[in-house]
Amino acid sequence: MTTLNPTTRTKLSRLPERGRFDIETIHSILDAMPMCHVAYMWDGKPAIVPTLQWREQDQVFWHGSTGAASHLKGQENDVCLNVCIFDGLVLARSAFHHSANYRSVTIFGTPERVIDHDKKTQLMKNFVEGFFPGRWDQLRPLKDKEIRATSILSLPITEASAKIRSGPPSDEDEDYAYDVWAGVLPITMRFEEPHADEFTTADVERPSYLVDRSIGQ
Amino acid sequence: MTTLNPTTRTKLSRLPERGRFDIETIHSILDAMPMCHVAYMWDGKPAIVPTLQWREQDQVFWHGSTGAASHLKGQENDVCLNVCIFDGLVLARSAFHHSANYRSVTIFGTPERVIDHDKKTQLMKNFVEGFFPGRWDQLRPLKDKEIRATSILSLPITEASAKIRSGPPSDEDEDYAYDVWAGVLPITMRFEEPHADEFTTADVERPSYLVDRSIGQ
Repeated sequence: MTTLNPTTRTKLSRLPERGRFDIETIHSILDAMPMCHVAYMWDGKPAIVPTLQWREQDQVFWHGSTGAASHLKGQENDVCLNVCIFDGLVLARSAFHHSANYRSVTIFGTPERVIDHDKKTQLMKNFVEGFFPGRWDQLRPLKDKEIRATSILSLPITEASAKIRSGPPSDEDEDYAYDVWAGVLPITMRFEEPHADEFTTADVERPSYLVDRSIGQ
Repeated sequence: MTTLNPTTRTKLSRLPERGRFDIETIHSILDAMPMCHVAYMWDGKPAIVPTLQWREQDQVFWHGSTGAASHLKGQENDVCLNVCIFDGLVLARSAFHHSANYRSVTIFGTPERVIDHDKKTQLMKNFVEGFFPGRWDQLRPLKDKEIRATSILSLPITEASAKIRSGPPSDEDEDYAYDVWAGVLPITMRFEEPHADEFTTADVERPSYLVDRSIGQ
């Protein structure tokens, strides 16, 4: 039962040339899965909030209410952000070597709050357009008070690492003779058929950005 | 773009009678999704480790290497554990009301390390059997050194809360007239066809616990 521990603190600049740690791998995991977890300090104790992140170049962003504890306590303080894609259960021939397949990125740092009104608007547009290209211009425009009510934090992808486990179980040499099924039970995440709400009239065409989308790949 | 913030600290005993906070809801989310994130303190800073949890009655457990930082730093110290099932993207008529559907449980507390050898063995059995009923007795038995090398932490489900968002977008009354597709792009997680490893001979029957399994439901 191997642990999942991607939190080795390694500066990217000091990383060895290993595929799992290269910046392209880190970016690909961040780009494949918007759901992330952010840990921050709250009254001297660690707290976690799940939220959605998006990446632009060498930074990740997440947003929330300006009143959210995770944003009030997280900005300008140490945080840790993790994205983990759960790819499967690994069934070995001993309990000890059971494991999980996954792709994980962990980033440590001190997020900055984005203050500039136009920059915030642009970031929110990028967030929406990143999911749904072309949607921004279809929407009711953002109101100033909505931008003011939104906190956006940015974190540079500098103190970051990826950890990946994939493939079949790794058993002890002498255990391969055991007469038990061993292998991987893969897990995938997918988008199902979109559900229009009751106020979307029949003449509203389903946007192309809702068709054949994937997540976690 | 509504935030996801399940970290309201509320003692279960003080919870209002709301479905989303009742203990059955909390248990059902924990039982539906083994992947969790644990935040712990590391040199005065928050760190996150993704790992697999399992529940027994009113406690959650997770295991790892006795040398793992998350276990060394987490035991007897404040941690925060979150399980979040990502159920979909919610497309509203304004960017501001875009959201995510999800089911989330957050637990605060101080985990205890399980010391007793027999208790650890029983817990590891429960963990394996919880996923794969009947598998434990098919496996090469655990070795004492494997049990010694495994750390198991337990956390009582007392300071815990659930947060759930489901259903269609909530738009401003005046925005429903916008001529744009609005609704939910659902996300599901599923097990795919099991892959036996190359050492599993053709005469080894695929166990029934690998058939028709679900996750995240």
